[in-house]
Amino acid sequence: MPELRKDPIIGRWVIISTDRARRPSSFSSMPRPREEASMCPFCPGNEAHTPPEVFAYRQPNSVPNRPGWRVRVISNKFPALVIEGNLSRQAKGLYDQMNGIGAHEVIIETPHHGRDMVDMTDEEIRDVLWIYRERMLDLARDSRFKYILIFKNHGEAAGASLEHEHSQLIATPIIPKRVTEELDGSRQYYSFKERCIFCDIIRQEIMEYERIVKDYDAFISFQPFASRFPFETWIIPKPHQSSFLEMSDQEYLILAAALKDTLGRIKLALNNPAFNFILHTRPISKDSHEYFHWHIEIFPKVTKMAGFEWGSGFYINPTSPEEAASFLRGIDMNGRHYSGQTGSASNG
Amino acid sequence: MPELRKDPIIGRWVIISTDRARRPSSFSSMPRPREEASMCPFCPGNEAHTPPEVFAYRQPNSVPNRPGWRVRVISNKFPALVIEGNLSRQAKGLYDQMNGIGAHEVIIETPHHGRDMVDMTDEEIRDVLWIYRERMLDLARDSRFKYILIFKNHGEAAGASLEHEHSQLIATPIIPKRVTEELDGSRQYYSFKERCIFCDIIRQEIMEYERIVKDYDAFISFQPFASRFPFETWIIPKPHQSSFLEMSDQEYLILAAALKDTLGRIKLALNNPAFNFILHTRPISKDSHEYFHWHIEIFPKVTKMAGFEWGSGFYINPTSPEEAASFLRGIDMNGRHYSGQTGSASNG
Repeated sequence: MPELRKDPIIGRWVIISTDRARRPSSFSSMPRPREEASMCPFCPGNEAHTPPEVFAYRQPNSVPNRPGWRVRVISNKFPALVIEGNLSRQAKGLYDQMNGIGAHEVIIETPHHGRDMVDMTDEEIRDVLWIYRERMLDLARDSRFKYILIFKNHGEAAGASLEHEHSQLIATPIIPKRVTEELDGSRQYYSFKERCIFCDIIRQEIMEYERIVKDYDAFISFQPFASRFPFETWIIPKPHQSSFLEMSDQEYLILAAALKDTLGRIKLALNNPAFNFILHTRPISKDSHEYFHWHIEIFPKVTKMAGFEWGSGFYINPTSPEEAASFLRGIDMNGRHYSGQTGSASNG
Repeated sequence: MPELRKDPIIGRWVIISTDRARRPSSFSSMPRPREEASMCPFCPGNEAHTPPEVFAYRQPNSVPNRPGWRVRVISNKFPALVIEGNLSRQAKGLYDQMNGIGAHEVIIETPHHGRDMVDMTDEEIRDVLWIYRERMLDLARDSRFKYILIFKNHGEAAGASLEHEHSQLIATPIIPKRVTEELDGSRQYYSFKERCIFCDIIRQEIMEYERIVKDYDAFISFQPFASRFPFETWIIPKPHQSSFLEMSDQEYLILAAALKDTLGRIKLALNNPAFNFILHTRPISKDSHEYFHWHIEIFPKVTKMAGFEWGSGFYINPTSPEEAASFLRGIDMNGRHYSGQTGSASNG
């Protein structure tokens, strides 16, 4: 079973993952070969090579763990946290440890190997978002869990080990440190201003417009003022919603279109970069409803974290968010090329 | 001038570095070609290709910005922060920004291209550590600075852009978030226990011994209990010292030998991996003397940060620190090979 260990100084948790164990001799600097489509465990026909299906959207007459699915959710074959067992916390001298209880699922977004979100239809992406929702609602009923994190690693540089398009879900028995920081920060702002900080950011961004990538009516996509990375892009709902689960049916479809368009711009701008996206939503408990505002953070992997970032927690970003936004706005998604409307971005 | 921007939600600072500006079209996924030694700006004879020398250890009759140096400090050609100017803070709507005042220096550790710390003598490494000390003492007199961070990026995967062995120094006008977290955590422990948490960790590690890589009398090197990364290794002085500047002359030499030995073990174990090392020392102000304890953190780059780490602040580590320590202890540094004393590590 994986083991959770807490850094005694700064309180950061680490998962020592025995199921993913890598021996010292296995650290090769050679890139792994990419799997062939016929060998891909996420392709239809290869369902037997994955752990059993947790949930799927399927054709009416198809059966679980066989072809006929449109979106398929399975347990991760090498889970960072495991679902069976009771929470147990203990001390080891001055250290703290916990057994690695949680859920770790994989959402296979499409049966088509090599197809990514940019190639999918709005409705297909909506189904992926909808299945996120169904899994979150189901896992939220398990009282051991405090937070459900959904994310995507796209491309090897972003940590993806299989190229067939998928995202992941992890349910954790504690609220992760990174989430706590956001909750704490937005609660402090709320207690001072009595307004949601994200709502204030949205108003300022729409007014200034220089960091907006696109306005999708119910959502905006924009480059945050203090972007850590070149082309870091957030998609956020304009109305105040603390949870991804608060959207209307129609909003899921608009978000699907917004995600497709934004990812498409990034793909064109940076020549199909590796990227991560992370869904930031409130914890299962509703305490943070007033001050937290859900959103999606996308960051392409075009720079490397180095000693300065690791040592300071500062980031050095060599591309201003204003320039990145201008470049992404200038992409013609109908013709699917860069139309060069913005002088500063095309003169580089 | 670089611009510091503060994330309004979690308070993280980002440097938007205009001097390092990268246009969207410059993000290629191709690795950069490695420089030839003859083209290396850090090699003797090429001094004119770097910014002027700030400080150096030189042969008696040699002159600045010419060959004859053993260790050479220059300003970074593409500084993340710049030394000229006064601090100025301002609001931009709800956002906070600051001009990018600071110092960013490069310490060229050896005139010999291709030679790394493992190949250097103890005395040569001692001189590098000593020059860190001289630069820190000098910059600490500048009242604009609150913290001085020293780090090394070794290898392209760790963010090094030149392969000639060097380290870097950044002086910042604010205490970085990552440093503040460590100070806060160790202060809390001290106020509760009236003991330094690092001193307690050292005692427990020596008693348990399973995470110790080597005991160098005045220092230990060990794998922290909650290691974020495989083979994350810390070197820490056994006596309570809050600052790198508190060592005796003799201790600088012992640290040099410890660093050479520890980096040598990691180099052999992981086949010359890219790595970062970061000097964690207290801020220029002495407030934290009682509860902070300086140390060096080394982490080889053998895994990738992925969505889960970014989204949660948790880390998933596939190699237990106990196994990594056992493997590193089993390396015979005289014969410079792995001697396989530890069953668990050699059976992998």
